[in-house]
Amino acid sequence: MATAKRARSARLRIHVENNPATAEVYDITPAMIRRRMRQAPGLAGQIAISYGKDPARLDAALAEAEILLTGGFDATGLAARAPGLRWIQSTSAGVEKLAPVLPPDVILTNASGVHGPKAGEYAMTALLMINHLVPHYVTAQRARRWDQAFATPIAGKTVAILGVGAIGSAAARLARRFGMRIIGVSRSGTANRLVDRMYAAKDLRKALPGADFVLTTLPLTAETRGLLGRAELDLLPRHAGLVNLGRGAVIDADALADKLRKGELSGAVLDVFAEEPLPSASALWGTPNLIISPHCAADDSTSYAERALDIFLDNLQRYVAGRRLINVVDKRLGY
Amino acid sequence: MATAKRARSARLRIHVENNPATAEVYDITPAMIRRRMRQAPGLAGQIAISYGKDPARLDAALAEAEILLTGGFDATGLAARAPGLRWIQSTSAGVEKLAPVLPPDVILTNASGVHGPKAGEYAMTALLMINHLVPHYVTAQRARRWDQAFATPIAGKTVAILGVGAIGSAAARLARRFGMRIIGVSRSGTANRLVDRMYAAKDLRKALPGADFVLTTLPLTAETRGLLGRAELDLLPRHAGLVNLGRGAVIDADALADKLRKGELSGAVLDVFAEEPLPSASALWGTPNLIISPHCAADDSTSYAERALDIFLDNLQRYVAGRRLINVVDKRLGY
Repeated sequence: MATAKRARSARLRIHVENNPATAEVYDITPAMIRRRMRQAPGLAGQIAISYGKDPARLDAALAEAEILLTGGFDATGLAARAPGLRWIQSTSAGVEKLAPVLPPDVILTNASGVHGPKAGEYAMTALLMINHLVPHYVTAQRARRWDQAFATPIAGKTVAILGVGAIGSAAARLARRFGMRIIGVSRSGTANRLVDRMYAAKDLRKALPGADFVLTTLPLTAETRGLLGRAELDLLPRHAGLVNLGRGAVIDADALADKLRKGELSGAVLDVFAEEPLPSASALWGTPNLIISPHCAADDSTSYAERALDIFLDNLQRYVAGRRLINVVDKRLGY
Repeated sequence: MATAKRARSARLRIHVENNPATAEVYDITPAMIRRRMRQAPGLAGQIAISYGKDPARLDAALAEAEILLTGGFDATGLAARAPGLRWIQSTSAGVEKLAPVLPPDVILTNASGVHGPKAGEYAMTALLMINHLVPHYVTAQRARRWDQAFATPIAGKTVAILGVGAIGSAAARLARRFGMRIIGVSRSGTANRLVDRMYAAKDLRKALPGADFVLTTLPLTAETRGLLGRAELDLLPRHAGLVNLGRGAVIDADALADKLRKGELSGAVLDVFAEEPLPSASALWGTPNLIISPHCAADDSTSYAERALDIFLDNLQRYVAGRRLINVVDKRLGY
């Protein structure tokens, strides 16, 4: 098979750029790649990999790279900076910053599916918390106040899941086991076996009045930005609660906080925010019946990077073989 | 059937005493009883019911009553105060205050099972919250601090359930659906099909080191008071968390709070306390990684009183027919 091996100079140039702004659990390390390559010696001989975690040194690597594995970087003017770049694999599922600015001939794939089991569990946790009035208890605890409030079981109640992708589907499976009814909202409204009733995004307002809970896992795109504004939140019943595990700017957080302060919604769990880290001056921190988790609820610390690497290596083998990649992002739609 | 009907004077005298110290959702009202009696006209003709919610007026009713349905009262000196009393049905599952002071010839039945689905859901909610680091997020939120921490899925982890009765069993069923392993601890240690491994109470210390979570649903008895003291809590792994939905005095809450402050346990959810309402001066309110709910997490506001009434009316028909009652409390054991 010697003839099949590429010469060192002809090897596929891959650059791995980790994001210095995110926690280390997300980093793809040389040790992780080496371990995987031991199981794929044929592939190992065809590639040359460089690593970085410093925006100031990125362009030197980009000038040579054909493939970029990245946890996020500033891609402005990329066509000139990376003339040989053909494919970017994101280790994140959300690619709202990358998608709009990439040159048309660069393929973008994301890590949709990386969150799987953990994110579904956290979504179910958040729904149960709201149903069982934990936001109320936590708010009362801050004031050292014994303030009883009695909930009813979640079984039989309805959750509207906005975005029935990997996380939404995992949540739907668990919600079913708790005897919940499931409404789905997706761009197309195509039927989904996990969902009792699907709505197209344009019919969102028809889906909201019947929801006891709204769970959004939506990516941030031109169509989803501000999707849940004041008018949409006003369509929810007063006892309803809201969970956001997708992207912060999908919801008008100020309108949400206002409704929570007025008792016009039961509670909310937000894991994502328009600005992250959420500034310490933000009024959201002290909003009653709102529980904040700092954009890590969906990620599994022991397996995130390895799961992202699974997706990349699957795609790398496809790329080398000239086959169709998985998780290709429609850059116009943004996911 | 005229001969079967008791004369007014010979009717079974039942007194319903609601507890002014508990929330109204627990009250058994005349309207609730009337509604039930329409479905049981034969029974209705044999009973005479009085109602009260005032300790100062209770003794007048007790002097006449053969049966007492109660949400809790001071039973000191009851033999002299209620010479004709044969049976007390408690609308509470926990009867630690009543059991030790009753005359030997008065039967005591409790409302074990009344909590069923709601309590199981709340137990699972609390386990998921601890696993997904919600106590950490809530503590950081109080300080307006963006403090990421990454969890792993709950699937495959182990919960030790102390007290595998109605609530413990409901929790075990849900925990199984999340792929958890279940250790049970009961007085006898008798095998239970919901539990992977049962321990007798005397072997509690063997069960703790292998637990990722401890859930206690134990009643308060001479044997359970202080069962989880400093020494027992020290046997838990540092990453473990604790949930108490039974009775507060089963746990040394000060030792628990100390371990939480030192980071020697991951988190805790307490719904019950040695003194309730928990005084506003209690240090527990501000303990890091501790979430407090005010003794209502297990009760279903829409169905609690009706479910307690189900148990009472089942028992009343048994009583009238001379059959064995259900939920009879062993006054020596206290549950």
